[in-house]
Amino acid sequence: MSRKGVLTIISGFSGAGKGTLVKELVKEHDYSLSISATTRKPREGEVHGREYFFLTREEFECMIEGGQLIEWTEYVGNYYGTPRAYVEEQLEQGKDVILEIEIEGALHVRNLFPDSLLLFITPPDADELRKRLISRGTETMDVINKRLKRASEEADFMKDYDFIIVNDCLKDCVDCIHQVITNEHYKTTNQNAFIAEMKHELEAFKEGE
Amino acid sequence: MSRKGVLTIISGFSGAGKGTLVKELVKEHDYSLSISATTRKPREGEVHGREYFFLTREEFECMIEGGQLIEWTEYVGNYYGTPRAYVEEQLEQGKDVILEIEIEGALHVRNLFPDSLLLFITPPDADELRKRLISRGTETMDVINKRLKRASEEADFMKDYDFIIVNDCLKDCVDCIHQVITNEHYKTTNQNAFIAEMKHELEAFKEGE
Repeated sequence: MSRKGVLTIISGFSGAGKGTLVKELVKEHDYSLSISATTRKPREGEVHGREYFFLTREEFECMIEGGQLIEWTEYVGNYYGTPRAYVEEQLEQGKDVILEIEIEGALHVRNLFPDSLLLFITPPDADELRKRLISRGTETMDVINKRLKRASEEADFMKDYDFIIVNDCLKDCVDCIHQVITNEHYKTTNQNAFIAEMKHELEAFKEGE
Repeated sequence: MSRKGVLTIISGFSGAGKGTLVKELVKEHDYSLSISATTRKPREGEVHGREYFFLTREEFECMIEGGQLIEWTEYVGNYYGTPRAYVEEQLEQGKDVILEIEIEGALHVRNLFPDSLLLFITPPDADELRKRLISRGTETMDVINKRLKRASEEADFMKDYDFIIVNDCLKDCVDCIHQVITNEHYKTTNQNAFIAEMKHELEAFKEGE
């Protein structure tokens, strides 16, 4: 296992169940969850500093200007962004960090952190996506239609992710994501220290001939 | 899950325990094991058509000339190679195929099958490798020393593999390999059919606006 933390970026269609998945992942396993900043209004039950840092536009723009966000975007009229400090601290401490962010932000973070793991969460089909958005009951039909149209545009970016994870059964999906992140530690690019040590030790046999 | 089989290539230091691992993988899970052809002498208990196809040099060279091997190499004075027909048939039928082959052959097969998964198996350290080679008791010290020197050269190719899997505990290692192969099906490159279908379905929402 590598000692460096893995940065996992979770994106997907609005309505794919990302929020619930991420909550379960953090509850069941030892992940550090990056908390995003946003200017959107809190939904019922959402708490400042837990689901999001709920900021005013002025506060958010101040963080952009100060370079305190590793990514930010404007989506359906609101800002969303990821504070830099927490992510970098956790990775340095060897903790696996999960970021749940929109696609544009995800691709931007991949440029800043080339070893990050990009997971795209999707329902099994488009009809199921529509049903989930409606049954959530927190949005107007106008917003739901906007999100569905957006999903059809976002589908073009699925190919830029490392893995496509279908969220059909919550528990299976959580297990699958946890396994994909766990395996990331075995990737050769995360094993440089082990490879160097093994090569060093084997040198002795070469010289011994 | 993709319907196309995943071709997994397992290599590693001689003495890393690849043979036992592969036997367990095939026993515990539904993998198709590619059987190599070789000109080396059978070890005690090895059966023609099970561990290897044991061929004469003349028979082996005839397969090379006929293009019936996807890779072949000469190692410590013997030929080793992979018959083409079986691998291609199994992958087309959606079966996951495991190839246990030497490094040169592995890198050659990766060129022929770019989506193949390359796993490098290693003991936890060099001293353990030496101990395992000695305790196997099937080789002379001269052959063991040759294998150790070879290992120090082979270590340069660890970086060309996708994953480095440490074989410390057999069961954990089998589970780990099985999980890495399972996850391969979720990779975006193995989800082209699903992505195309999802995009097609979502188009309806775009046009419906």
